[in-house]
Amino acid sequence: MDEIIFGKNSVLEALIAGEREINKILISKNLHNDTKLNKIKELAAKNGVIFQFVAKEKFQPYAEYNHQGVLAYISPIKYMELDEFLEQKHENDCVVILDGVEDPHNLGAIIRTSVCAGAAGIIIPSRRNVLVNSIVEKTSAGAINHIPVIKVNSLVNAVQKLKNNDWWIIATDASAKDNYYNINYCGMNSAIIMGAEHAGISKSLLKSSDFIVKIPMMNNFNSLNVSNAYSAIIFEILRQKLNNIKKETSK
Amino acid sequence: MDEIIFGKNSVLEALIAGEREINKILISKNLHNDTKLNKIKELAAKNGVIFQFVAKEKFQPYAEYNHQGVLAYISPIKYMELDEFLEQKHENDCVVILDGVEDPHNLGAIIRTSVCAGAAGIIIPSRRNVLVNSIVEKTSAGAINHIPVIKVNSLVNAVQKLKNNDWWIIATDASAKDNYYNINYCGMNSAIIMGAEHAGISKSLLKSSDFIVKIPMMNNFNSLNVSNAYSAIIFEILRQKLNNIKKETSK
Repeated sequence: MDEIIFGKNSVLEALIAGEREINKILISKNLHNDTKLNKIKELAAKNGVIFQFVAKEKFQPYAEYNHQGVLAYISPIKYMELDEFLEQKHENDCVVILDGVEDPHNLGAIIRTSVCAGAAGIIIPSRRNVLVNSIVEKTSAGAINHIPVIKVNSLVNAVQKLKNNDWWIIATDASAKDNYYNINYCGMNSAIIMGAEHAGISKSLLKSSDFIVKIPMMNNFNSLNVSNAYSAIIFEILRQKLNNIKKETSK
Repeated sequence: MDEIIFGKNSVLEALIAGEREINKILISKNLHNDTKLNKIKELAAKNGVIFQFVAKEKFQPYAEYNHQGVLAYISPIKYMELDEFLEQKHENDCVVILDGVEDPHNLGAIIRTSVCAGAAGIIIPSRRNVLVNSIVEKTSAGAINHIPVIKVNSLVNAVQKLKNNDWWIIATDASAKDNYYNINYCGMNSAIIMGAEHAGISKSLLKSSDFIVKIPMMNNFNSLNVSNAYSAIIFEILRQKLNNIKKETSK
């Protein structure tokens, strides 16, 4: 069955990626033309995707989605299999493993941040974690079309498989001794485990990790949102990698 | 007039901070006791704040606020004056200046991240930017009680005043040459300007900045959420400062 995605960015990025079948695009008659809307109409026409102008009342049931007067009926995202992901070539890559992230806005923000920072994939468990839905797609601002999301039945098994393929496992936990920036992320494939907003990472996952790191917290206020915590870490990894490339080329 | 704040964290942090007058706390009868709820009741009793157990229907009008069955009527937050802020002692401090951030979830996340990363304050303009409301308070998870929010009529004037007081102004802009981590943030007070989600930072502010920096973006996907962008920068500043303290003490 089709899903609905909302907003200019989401629809535009789905058209650009071109990987999912778009059944129909609805555009509010009241909408003024702008660069993004023109681009949507242009790409839709080019790819033979139907678009219709409809009364703004058509969007009333979707008020909570911040739809900007644009929506599309689209085939659901295809999750990637972990085996398929591991068969691809990975060098100095990074994936994020989410353990019990329940808020769709957080998953959307993590997907978006991952694409911006060049992460290679996102691994989520099929239970006890939010899956990709309309809110996730909207919050990801279309980034969902640019990165594989890998759904696995067991995170413990997935971590073992990653280790067997020479990936290093780095878990985040408030009680860790090392700060996240004390790890050298260059020259290895790494998987960063981020925990649930309240419960943190499960013990079995902590136990199978190669490193456990924390984000230093000031003001005794140990309550960073998971997507913001992830952003600090993934951009530190990117910083290290870009600095390393610079060093390599200046040799 | 009183504001309403929602959720266990928000109410608990307001009680701990003790700076605002709490008129009454409502707790849903259906709520099971947990550590946070017990702490709320204990602190309320200690501070003479009335709390009442009410039918869960009382919370129905507030479904969108993720209230967790707890709310409080509270005096509005007091914004700090910039002059008062500048009169305080600042050494190697950092503030964030928000130019046109409209989404209350983003402001809430930025406040929360600021407290975790040890920023000294948040400066917002009185127009064309979201002010502190119930959604901001909820998203900040109570962090709003631990950091001054400074509301100013003109950001341009505020920046000039900061410069006159020896603060360095760092603006973020996608077209900058330098990456944010190439600045040495140690040994100075710095103000980081973050722009609106769509429009970026106004030209007059860019012009009065001492440095303009960007966050490197992979995948040609230049669309990082403002709170995640801020998180990358403020935790890089914290990383530099903590590393610097370490160097100082090991001399």
